[in-house]
Amino acid sequence: MSFSLTILGSSSAVPTSRRYPAAHVLNVHERYFLIDCGEGAQIQMKRNNIRFGKINNIFISHLHGDHVFGLFGLISTFGLLERTADLHIYANPKLEKILDNILKFFFEQPLSFKIIFHPIGSKKQELIYEDEKVTVETIPLKHRIPTCGFLFREKAPLLNIRKDMIEYHNIPVKEIYNIKCGKDFNKPDGTSIPNKKLTLPPYKPRSMAYCCDTRYSEGIVKYIKNVDLLYHEATYANNMAKEAREKYHSSAGEAATAAKKANAGKLIIGHFSPRYKSILPLVEDARKIFPNTFAAQEGEVHKVKQTKDKRNQ
Amino acid sequence: MSFSLTILGSSSAVPTSRRYPAAHVLNVHERYFLIDCGEGAQIQMKRNNIRFGKINNIFISHLHGDHVFGLFGLISTFGLLERTADLHIYANPKLEKILDNILKFFFEQPLSFKIIFHPIGSKKQELIYEDEKVTVETIPLKHRIPTCGFLFREKAPLLNIRKDMIEYHNIPVKEIYNIKCGKDFNKPDGTSIPNKKLTLPPYKPRSMAYCCDTRYSEGIVKYIKNVDLLYHEATYANNMAKEAREKYHSSAGEAATAAKKANAGKLIIGHFSPRYKSILPLVEDARKIFPNTFAAQEGEVHKVKQTKDKRNQ
Repeated sequence: MSFSLTILGSSSAVPTSRRYPAAHVLNVHERYFLIDCGEGAQIQMKRNNIRFGKINNIFISHLHGDHVFGLFGLISTFGLLERTADLHIYANPKLEKILDNILKFFFEQPLSFKIIFHPIGSKKQELIYEDEKVTVETIPLKHRIPTCGFLFREKAPLLNIRKDMIEYHNIPVKEIYNIKCGKDFNKPDGTSIPNKKLTLPPYKPRSMAYCCDTRYSEGIVKYIKNVDLLYHEATYANNMAKEAREKYHSSAGEAATAAKKANAGKLIIGHFSPRYKSILPLVEDARKIFPNTFAAQEGEVHKVKQTKDKRNQ
Repeated sequence: MSFSLTILGSSSAVPTSRRYPAAHVLNVHERYFLIDCGEGAQIQMKRNNIRFGKINNIFISHLHGDHVFGLFGLISTFGLLERTADLHIYANPKLEKILDNILKFFFEQPLSFKIIFHPIGSKKQELIYEDEKVTVETIPLKHRIPTCGFLFREKAPLLNIRKDMIEYHNIPVKEIYNIKCGKDFNKPDGTSIPNKKLTLPPYKPRSMAYCCDTRYSEGIVKYIKNVDLLYHEATYANNMAKEAREKYHSSAGEAATAAKKANAGKLIIGHFSPRYKSILPLVEDARKIFPNTFAAQEGEVHKVKQTKDKRNQ
C-alpha cells in the first residue's frame, strides 16, 4: 500500500548539470501519477525504474516550458513503444491545441493510444480525479500565469474485520462489507454486536500537496491543512524573498511557513534557482521555521508510512 | 586550433537511462556548432562544460522529435539568461512556423535575442554556412522524411611564413599576407624568391561528416570522400539489416561500409536502438569492415589532430 513521491527534477526554469526541470511521480497503491513533465522526465523515469506503462495520468501545474517540455518526448516514446492504454492529461485548456499541433507536426502516424485531455481551472479548488483509492483536487496558486497545485488524498480505507469475531459470531459473508464500513452486526437472535468489538482500526488516509510555482500566500493554507507531505517550491533563499515575491516565486522560509501553518507532516522544498550550487542554506532557512524540511533531490523517494487511524478507537 | 566532436546523445528515438537523444557539438577553432538538439541537450551541454554563449549555430538534420525536442528548452534557457547574440538555426523550412508558435505560446515576453532561421533543403548538396575558418554543406540522406546530413570543412589555412626568411630577405609587412597565400617574393633588385623557400607547410584542413538518420546508400559516398571523421548512424546490428532498411536506418556494417568506401579517417557509430544494452556487438560488426570504428558515448570527445599538409612540399 505505497504512498511515495519520487523526485525526477528539482530545478527551476534553467536546469543545471545535476538538476532537471520539474517532474515528480506520486505512487499511491501502485497508481503512478506524473506531476509536471519538464524536459528529461522520460530519462529520469527510466533511471528511477518507473515503468512507462504505469503512467496513465499526468497533471500539469501551468504552461511554463520547464513544466511541460518533457511531455512531447514522453508521448512520442509511448507511441514508439506501441502503448494502447488511454493517457489522461490534466492541464490548462490552452495546452490541448498546442499539444495537438505538435503531435500532428512531429508524428508521421496517428498514436497507438488515445490522449484524453482534461481541462482544469486554477481559480478555485476542484475535484479533477477520483477512483476507488484516490482523489485529486486542484489548489489555486499565485503565479504569473494561471497555475494550480494538486492535492492527492488517499480515500479512507475500510475497517479491518477481526477474523476471530467472524467465526465466534458466525458472521455471514454478506454482512462483512457492511461491518467493514462501520455498521454493527445484528445477530439472528436479535442481539446487536457493536462494530467496535468486531473491527480493528485501519491506517489513516494519507495525503500529499504539490504547490509549484507560486508566490507564498496564506490563502493556500486552508487547502493543504494537515497534509502528510507538502511539496512547496522554494526557488530562493530567505535573503532573496523580495525577488521571489516580484517573480511570483517563494523563499525557503515562506515554504516552511506554509508547512507550519498547514500543520503538515513533512515539507519538501524544490524548484531551486540555478544560482544555488548547494541547497543547504535554503534547507537551513526553512528548518528554522519548520524543522521537518528536506530538499528535493533527483532520484530520492519520500515515503509516507501508514499510521493508525483513530476513527474506531 | 580545435577540431573536436562532443557526443551529447547517442540514442535513437527512445532514450535509455544512460543514452540521450541525438545532440552533438562540433568545436572548430572555438566556434561551437550544435548538430541536432534532442531532449536533454541543454543539460548535457552543462555537464560537458559547453558554454551556452558559444552556441550561435544549430543544425537540425530532420524534423523527428528525437532530433528537435531539446530546442524549445534550450531557447527558453537562452532567453532566461538574457542572451543578446543572434541564434542561427538551419533546418527544414517547416520548423520555422511550429517553432514560432511554440515560442509565442510558452514565453511571456519576447526573447532577448533574435532567432535567424535558415531553411535548408535535403535533395542536393548545398553550402549553407561559411565564415573565414569553416564551411558547412548539406548531404542528401535517405530517411522517411526529408533529412540531410552536414559536412563541416575547415578552410585551407594560410602557409606559415618563416621568420628567419623575413629577416634574411628583409620582407616588408605588406608582402607577408601574399606570401602566406602562396606567392613568390620579388625583391626590389628584381630577384624572385620562390614561395617554397619562404614558407613551411601548414596543417591539412580537417573535416567531419554527420549522416543521421539515414538508410545506407552508396550515393552518399561521393559527398563524404576522405573526411577525417565520419559520424554515421547505426541504429541496428548487422543481424537486423533488413529491419534497418525497412525503417530507413542503417546497420553497423553499413555505416562501416560507407566509411570504408569514403576512405574516412575514423568512424563513429551512434543513434543506437534501446534494445542494445551493450553496444559492443555493433562495434564488432563495424570493425570487421572498418577497423577504426568507435561507438558514440555521452560525454566523449573525438578530436581530429592537425597533420601536415603536402601542398607546399
